[in-house]
Amino acid sequence: MSEFPRTPRNRVKRLPKRAQYDREPVYAVVDSAPICHVGFVQDGQPFVIPTIHARIGDTLIIHGSTASRMMKHLGSGAELCVTVTHLDGLVLARSAFHHSMNYRSAVLFGRGENITDQAEKLDALKAVSEHLAPGRWADVRQPSTQELKATTVVRMPIESASMKSRTGGPIDDEADYALEVWAGVLPIALRAGALQADARLDVSIPAPRYLEVLQH
Amino acid sequence: MSEFPRTPRNRVKRLPKRAQYDREPVYAVVDSAPICHVGFVQDGQPFVIPTIHARIGDTLIIHGSTASRMMKHLGSGAELCVTVTHLDGLVLARSAFHHSMNYRSAVLFGRGENITDQAEKLDALKAVSEHLAPGRWADVRQPSTQELKATTVVRMPIESASMKSRTGGPIDDEADYALEVWAGVLPIALRAGALQADARLDVSIPAPRYLEVLQH
Repeated sequence: MSEFPRTPRNRVKRLPKRAQYDREPVYAVVDSAPICHVGFVQDGQPFVIPTIHARIGDTLIIHGSTASRMMKHLGSGAELCVTVTHLDGLVLARSAFHHSMNYRSAVLFGRGENITDQAEKLDALKAVSEHLAPGRWADVRQPSTQELKATTVVRMPIESASMKSRTGGPIDDEADYALEVWAGVLPIALRAGALQADARLDVSIPAPRYLEVLQH
Repeated sequence: MSEFPRTPRNRVKRLPKRAQYDREPVYAVVDSAPICHVGFVQDGQPFVIPTIHARIGDTLIIHGSTASRMMKHLGSGAELCVTVTHLDGLVLARSAFHHSMNYRSAVLFGRGENITDQAEKLDALKAVSEHLAPGRWADVRQPSTQELKATTVVRMPIESASMKSRTGGPIDDEADYALEVWAGVLPIALRAGALQADARLDVSIPAPRYLEVLQH
């Protein structure tokens, strides 16, 4: 399994036993989350923006409006940090100090590049669509030339990355186990609800199987 | 209602009709999310880290280990961007182009300051605990002097902020409403599951009411 080199940028300093540098666990976090948070710097000021994403091999894809100054900046070779987080639970210990969260998070580093090739751009947009709802792309009207022009797609070759996670119940100080305090985990997860048809949907059109399976 | 001044830093450029600058909607987003993403800059490189938070008035609170170099940096007056995001749904339009997400996100700006006063530090930690599980703080063993020393708490006076949101169904091109494509919304939300007792929990200790109400 191929590992990202450990450099000062991606090395996890705190609780290093929670960290992993192999592509597989890092990408498992990236691929199973619907959104990421993109960090960038302008005039020394950090900005963090949520957006949807996809991964193609060792490249992260994000997109936005061509009218967006942010997208222009992201595609101009800017240093980016893309963080993907799953919150898995609240860890309730017997002391305030040992409370924690169960989570999985991946932090990716690289520089953004504007995709100009039209075929590559279309493939990247398809990847974003399929990441969120596999099967959707083939079912909907494809982007027109004008719509493609109105969309900026940025690829970030993943230069460096790491993931960090915590699982399991609370770890209390030995003396605290005698306290009469409830302890355990409150699991938390992102869940989809029931599909809601558009008000203008022709009622003879059923929800496709690839969307039904996304419901919980 | 008091509004954050619109400056180049917090002004929403894309789709400004989705933006709000009043404290109330910004803080509603911050207060109803369990975690945030903190952005900061070191040597020109952006970093984005997920963490739990709380808000006390116009101040955001985050905390971590005193051994953490990141916490030292965050508390040293560093420019921060704290982003809080709720993903509310996947918007399924009849064309690829008009697909979207329903969401609420708040972006806060300010500089981090290390809290040194012990009473203020304890109040801040209590706020973080009560933010996640109201009622928990009074129920658990309080931090010892040593535990307080091992914890760095950073406050960020919120200098500037905005929130952005999208709600509702897809907005398709008029011609596309004739297409035989299912359209609508797949709602998404962060949900808590059923409480899981710690393996070492004395079974005679029931889960307290304030935790039971968090379950879905």
